[in-house]
Amino acid sequence: MQDDRSTRRQSHNGLGEVGVPASKLDGNSPRPLYLQLYDLIRCDVLEGRLSPGSRLSSSRSLASDLSVSRNTVLSAVEQLVAEGYLESRLGAGTFVSTELPEDLLGSPIESPSVPLQAKGQSARTSQRGQVLRAFSSIGTHPVLRPLQAGAPAYDELPRETWGRAVSRALRTLVDDQLDYADPRGSLRLRTAVASHLRSLRGLNCSSEQIFIVGGSQQAIGLAAHALIDPGDQVWVEEPGYIGAKAAFIGAGARLVPVPVGDHGLELEEGRQRAPHARLVYVTPSHQYPLGMTMSLRRRLELIAWARRTGGWILEDDYDSEFRFAGRPLAPLAALDPGSPVIYVGTFSKVLFPGLRLGYLVVPLELVEVFAGVRFAADRQPPSLEQLALALLMEDGSLVRHIRRMRALYHRRSTVLGQAVAESLPDVLQLTGSAAGLHVVGLLRSSRSDTEIAATAAEHGVSTVALSRYFLEAPTASGLVLGFAAFEERAIRAAVRTLDQILRPEKE
Amino acid sequence: MQDDRSTRRQSHNGLGEVGVPASKLDGNSPRPLYLQLYDLIRCDVLEGRLSPGSRLSSSRSLASDLSVSRNTVLSAVEQLVAEGYLESRLGAGTFVSTELPEDLLGSPIESPSVPLQAKGQSARTSQRGQVLRAFSSIGTHPVLRPLQAGAPAYDELPRETWGRAVSRALRTLVDDQLDYADPRGSLRLRTAVASHLRSLRGLNCSSEQIFIVGGSQQAIGLAAHALIDPGDQVWVEEPGYIGAKAAFIGAGARLVPVPVGDHGLELEEGRQRAPHARLVYVTPSHQYPLGMTMSLRRRLELIAWARRTGGWILEDDYDSEFRFAGRPLAPLAALDPGSPVIYVGTFSKVLFPGLRLGYLVVPLELVEVFAGVRFAADRQPPSLEQLALALLMEDGSLVRHIRRMRALYHRRSTVLGQAVAESLPDVLQLTGSAAGLHVVGLLRSSRSDTEIAATAAEHGVSTVALSRYFLEAPTASGLVLGFAAFEERAIRAAVRTLDQILRPEKE
Repeated sequence: MQDDRSTRRQSHNGLGEVGVPASKLDGNSPRPLYLQLYDLIRCDVLEGRLSPGSRLSSSRSLASDLSVSRNTVLSAVEQLVAEGYLESRLGAGTFVSTELPEDLLGSPIESPSVPLQAKGQSARTSQRGQVLRAFSSIGTHPVLRPLQAGAPAYDELPRETWGRAVSRALRTLVDDQLDYADPRGSLRLRTAVASHLRSLRGLNCSSEQIFIVGGSQQAIGLAAHALIDPGDQVWVEEPGYIGAKAAFIGAGARLVPVPVGDHGLELEEGRQRAPHARLVYVTPSHQYPLGMTMSLRRRLELIAWARRTGGWILEDDYDSEFRFAGRPLAPLAALDPGSPVIYVGTFSKVLFPGLRLGYLVVPLELVEVFAGVRFAADRQPPSLEQLALALLMEDGSLVRHIRRMRALYHRRSTVLGQAVAESLPDVLQLTGSAAGLHVVGLLRSSRSDTEIAATAAEHGVSTVALSRYFLEAPTASGLVLGFAAFEERAIRAAVRTLDQILRPEKE
Repeated sequence: MQDDRSTRRQSHNGLGEVGVPASKLDGNSPRPLYLQLYDLIRCDVLEGRLSPGSRLSSSRSLASDLSVSRNTVLSAVEQLVAEGYLESRLGAGTFVSTELPEDLLGSPIESPSVPLQAKGQSARTSQRGQVLRAFSSIGTHPVLRPLQAGAPAYDELPRETWGRAVSRALRTLVDDQLDYADPRGSLRLRTAVASHLRSLRGLNCSSEQIFIVGGSQQAIGLAAHALIDPGDQVWVEEPGYIGAKAAFIGAGARLVPVPVGDHGLELEEGRQRAPHARLVYVTPSHQYPLGMTMSLRRRLELIAWARRTGGWILEDDYDSEFRFAGRPLAPLAALDPGSPVIYVGTFSKVLFPGLRLGYLVVPLELVEVFAGVRFAADRQPPSLEQLALALLMEDGSLVRHIRRMRALYHRRSTVLGQAVAESLPDVLQLTGSAAGLHVVGLLRSSRSDTEIAATAAEHGVSTVALSRYFLEAPTASGLVLGFAAFEERAIRAAVRTLDQILRPEKE
């Protein structure tokens, strides 16, 4: 295209007048003709083919040369005059502006139809940007397939109830709710969440302490920015949740992997590796991804550690609504109300991830700092879905849905457990099935879990290799298997597929 | 309450049995009785009033002592056993667990009804958290009053059209759209935005380069995190947009205020103050808050500067849809498609801020870095409103609304201008009225603009003092006046109020 344009005919007459070739105008383009003409003249000015002070052909002759209407020419010229490329001199005609900085003229630019590119310049980004590039996850979201982890039962969503709540919210939103507002989110939804946490999780907190955020990912990110200075150490569970690691990297933290054992985070190991960590990220209700519950003893020890060292505990309670066996333990945040715990919850599992609503509960004296950090990040959450969700919570619809899903997920978890026990008892050992939307199948195999997951994906079964959740050399091999979103038949079929892939191991 | 509890009766019988006082149970509390009982026993265990190994009274006698049902007692005890506070020994009864870490017992904790507080520990937060605390803006959002800046015409929102789009989106969202997805946002909305930018702003870009974000605040924050390392210098307009400063502080930047003149940012001043700035933040279409348009010459010089130094330009085009006089200039991002420009736009002005939707257009080679940074921040935008907005854009409703609002805002701007010209010509000089939702009234007054704004607020008129937008000593005094959201009568009444406040100046 560049070559094409450089051979363009230029008609200079005795008065220095300049014409424009018709060949580049395309009547079938979605871009209006006058803007195409504008592009052409602008390029010629910027690239020096139309020199400063030269006079443009009259609009009448340009229109005739180009076989376009005179209005098209006038619109293009008017725009170029408005932008300073051209100047109209009364009675004398239209001239290429003499006001342009000379050093810019003559530097070739690409055609406006070429995508933006920083040419001749290495794309210098921030260090964290370079690291986070690995988390971009573009193109990694194909259609939902069994046994994708993390997905709730989309086909069981109370769409009608949700739709009614959204419609009611649309009718009742007042102007103030459409405007800039409290960075913590709507008071009404915060009040509903406080009440929800009191009754479901035994967590006493006030609406003042609650932030409505865009899912647990944003909750973790805000906590990281509020509490961590660049270079600070953060304990993360090994293996552990990938999104949390991205959030801490985003805040400049140094990640310290701390192994998890049967009772949860191995506190002693953490103490040895980084005694002065600023923050510890834990999933005590249902460790992600392994699924164990942190024991009460470990919980109390962790709180004692944080009190002693002045560290913070970030407790991610992402799926505790779905416990099938045993009663849930009180969250760290509820265990000892004076403790330095920031609590994170989400509606991604109880409703759906695309809702992008979750919440933070922060100690009172951190509220202003978190509000400032939230303001800087994205100001406030969206109005409509906050009100709709508050309505669902106030009339009990949400709790009813959770109760129904708990029973459903329990059945689906059982089906997955049975299918694995029947066909793969010696190869895949399930763990973490007391709660949540996924289990981990620990592999007794010499093949890498990454390779097995890739083969499974080729056969239509979506799993995540356990090794992906490790920062250091994996100490276990396995597959993270989601069951919540899939019908029993689909779960059984997926296990049969895994059986075929793993069969060589059995023989 | 602490005192109250410490005087609580404890009944120890010969077997070491322990009872619980009824006085603390409240049948009218929203917290169920069994959880109240659970709270009491747990506190007693943690505070050492029930010592490890001691036996609890039988459920029957506890129920009778407390005048509650035996089921209430059993539920509380069951929960405490599950959490490890109590142990059931077959045939022997229920005992306080001996497994608790001894160093934690005896440490007093607050009643669970007391809000979370990190006691005996200074709330150590990050440095940026401490600075951002000043931006928390909690409690600064009263009801909408004239002449609040930044608010669009809420009473003119196409609520029915929007409602229909939301309903249609609700009906048509498929499971994949409810799931975790591309961090850039929905392809459908990105395609609609690309087409919108082509036709309205002459900006050629592809859907690949577009990120749907939670308003321009998130757009600026993501760009800051993707491009700025802690300690890097960033040029910000002086006076300039407060939210952008918060976003840069959040990424660890050092802010370098660069004055704006009649032609926009004083580039030469910036070069002198910080020749190696990593990024410059500009509002070329309609400087915020002063309202001038950056000249073409300045635009080209700015691009040349960025190319030469390897710096980035962050162009915030927040209200360019509403230009009343002259044609809009092409944005920097469109001026020279190969230039290092990140473009920011928002739907907060063309629809409403509570929608929390805006967009970023980034050079292609930055897409992965921005995607990683976005993943770390909040993963992806919400499904429902993205689809609803795409529907509004595809059928032309949005452009029709913009066109209608452009005419309306022009009228309202004119009314404000006339009212000020009639009553306050010598005191308030309006500037920036060629576009947007606000103007600045420059004050010729010896009183501080902060004081005048405070007095106006007392009289029901909401303005922002121009001095708030300066980082260094303000070089101008004035009031930012929003007109878009208010009927002509309300605008005139607000100007009369300002007239009364400023009258002493005139005499």
